[in-house]
Amino acid sequence: MSNVQPPLGAPNAPIRGFPASEFALRTQKLQALMAQHALDGLLLLTEPEIRYFSGFHTLFWQSPTRPWFLFVPAAGKPIAIIPEIGAELMHQTWIDDIRTWSAPAPSDDGISLLTELLAPVADTGGRLGMLKGHETHLRMPLGDYERLMAALPGLKVTDATPLIRALRMVKSEAEIEKLTHICSIGSRTFDEVPKLAREGLAFEDLFRLFRREALYQGADDVPYLVGGADQGGYHDVISPPSPRPLQRGDIFMLDTGATWDGYYCDFDRNWAVGRADDASRRAYDVLWRATEAGIAAARPGTTCRELFHAMQAVIAELDDQGGDVGRLGHGLGMQLTEWPSHAAFDDTVIEENMVLTLEPSLSYGDGRIMVHEENIVVRADGAKLLTKRAPVDLPVI
Amino acid sequence: MSNVQPPLGAPNAPIRGFPASEFALRTQKLQALMAQHALDGLLLLTEPEIRYFSGFHTLFWQSPTRPWFLFVPAAGKPIAIIPEIGAELMHQTWIDDIRTWSAPAPSDDGISLLTELLAPVADTGGRLGMLKGHETHLRMPLGDYERLMAALPGLKVTDATPLIRALRMVKSEAEIEKLTHICSIGSRTFDEVPKLAREGLAFEDLFRLFRREALYQGADDVPYLVGGADQGGYHDVISPPSPRPLQRGDIFMLDTGATWDGYYCDFDRNWAVGRADDASRRAYDVLWRATEAGIAAARPGTTCRELFHAMQAVIAELDDQGGDVGRLGHGLGMQLTEWPSHAAFDDTVIEENMVLTLEPSLSYGDGRIMVHEENIVVRADGAKLLTKRAPVDLPVI
Repeated sequence: MSNVQPPLGAPNAPIRGFPASEFALRTQKLQALMAQHALDGLLLLTEPEIRYFSGFHTLFWQSPTRPWFLFVPAAGKPIAIIPEIGAELMHQTWIDDIRTWSAPAPSDDGISLLTELLAPVADTGGRLGMLKGHETHLRMPLGDYERLMAALPGLKVTDATPLIRALRMVKSEAEIEKLTHICSIGSRTFDEVPKLAREGLAFEDLFRLFRREALYQGADDVPYLVGGADQGGYHDVISPPSPRPLQRGDIFMLDTGATWDGYYCDFDRNWAVGRADDASRRAYDVLWRATEAGIAAARPGTTCRELFHAMQAVIAELDDQGGDVGRLGHGLGMQLTEWPSHAAFDDTVIEENMVLTLEPSLSYGDGRIMVHEENIVVRADGAKLLTKRAPVDLPVI
Repeated sequence: MSNVQPPLGAPNAPIRGFPASEFALRTQKLQALMAQHALDGLLLLTEPEIRYFSGFHTLFWQSPTRPWFLFVPAAGKPIAIIPEIGAELMHQTWIDDIRTWSAPAPSDDGISLLTELLAPVADTGGRLGMLKGHETHLRMPLGDYERLMAALPGLKVTDATPLIRALRMVKSEAEIEKLTHICSIGSRTFDEVPKLAREGLAFEDLFRLFRREALYQGADDVPYLVGGADQGGYHDVISPPSPRPLQRGDIFMLDTGATWDGYYCDFDRNWAVGRADDASRRAYDVLWRATEAGIAAARPGTTCRELFHAMQAVIAELDDQGGDVGRLGHGLGMQLTEWPSHAAFDDTVIEENMVLTLEPSLSYGDGRIMVHEENIVVRADGAKLLTKRAPVDLPVI
């Protein structure tokens, strides 16, 4: 054996889940938007959306086998059409109307139940909202979707992405509490890295130690952990870890999406092993100041484009390419990355109670890359850090 | 701090990744099937498929923001059409033709590049394979898919699920080696549970200890961990853990999908706390023997339907409902659950080198449920266990 000891757990952890009133409020807000857009119903297929309006929370989504459906009518509670294996758990939510089938059933995985439910909308030439827009996907077999549409020829399917996006981007206080909690767990975990990392430790073993530490600090899970390490700077920010041991002169980065009660933190930290080269110190300094510019700019009324340019103006001291990663941060919540994007294309106006990442990055030297990341909540008077601010100078272990 | 100690890591771990020859062979086999089905190309969008034919392996798929595409032509290497952020990692694979764009780009997230690539196929009224069948989904915005189809009116999209399914169901020796390794890590982790669990421990803290132990034993990650615990038996098998402390008389189950180098184990174990009630002992015994029946039946030439009935015949001693979970096991590999299904609807013929779960379950008593699960590889002479067989009697902690 190994390491039996009680975990520290999460001191002052918020209450798990949400009261039914929160789901009712979310549904009312959606139905108000649906009325504005003349939608007769909305069909949701993806985990965050189904959880957002029902409270249905399970890791069973890891299995791609079964589709799940939540229908939001123009008025009244959502209706769940789900595999029987989820019935017990769905009955613990605020949803009353739960229709199930014994899944998997390749010949009819919920399609008959959906057809029956949607027929009244289709028969009157009604409009059904679905997620068809940016950052969404169709979590059911495309063939089944086509069969469903063929069975409901009168149905007008409309993209409801803007409605869901508008709601989910602005967090409730209960959501912010969960996000604050997981960001604080992430910060405590990063604080331990100088004690975990050392010259000669395989990078993949550092990943393992980091995950264990995050769990010890109270995370439920660490679904996302990527990083890079190399002499004088890393080349890639999405790789799985290599078995290469850390060496003196390495710059390394860990970027984690840990979760608590289904909410993510998403931030990274950089370190140097033994010594830090001048180019990496300089890159770190530029990114640290770009983040400061982002923190100062992230206020209600600013657009994401303006926030992007505020950070990019500092980054341009070293790298005027604008970043191949495509954006300098994004929304954060039930997913590792959510709308909006801090990018030149995104004119979303930042609102109070948005939770955002600030994630400036740059290329330097001989194809090196560096990324810096913090998580914030936007309040009436400006950004408040959810993460413990990274040190002003590149830390040397 | 906490618990700094070097992890045990994974003794005798296989080599990570695959040689280029394995990807070449997979691609050749696919292209042979494509020729049989008169397909001019195949477009893949999902993580396991893109990894299977390219070797592209990253946790970055956790972010739903960006679509990724791999096109398999009728002959020659696959072509990657991916966000620029993945270029560095894709260049480390055997793929040569890598076309990128600066994503996210809501107005054109790879659609122009795809249109250009597919135009020659469309212009000749060619047939493009895509995954439209059971257990698949469309991992790109539905709106973008519709725009792509509108731009390529000559294109005939055909469901290629049976081709990919046939290939991925039968594992190579290198894949079996990885699956053997992660199953052995899972078995060692379950062996420690009697030392981790105790009366009074919050069930959610047991989950945290279990995840830490799995990492200590050498798992890269524990993406899936569900369970149930209650007096005289649990009611649900897909729930996240509750803070309820384990109590004397509880029956509890942990079901894990841990990973090593991107391959999953998927099995569970049951325990009683302090004492085991007769009904639960009896349910356990039936499921243990149903699994034995499954192990005996899982030979090349048997169908999944026959395998299902072999297990169901034993389960029927206690529960003749056939199981609301819909099936009694499935394929295992790069996903927690893969084709085929051990179910009455699935007439897939079991082949040598399939890796399968055997997962008999039943309802008993007052709405209790119990699940038992092992992982096997099918060899010419029958099933070989990848997991350390569960004890013959319900273990009491």
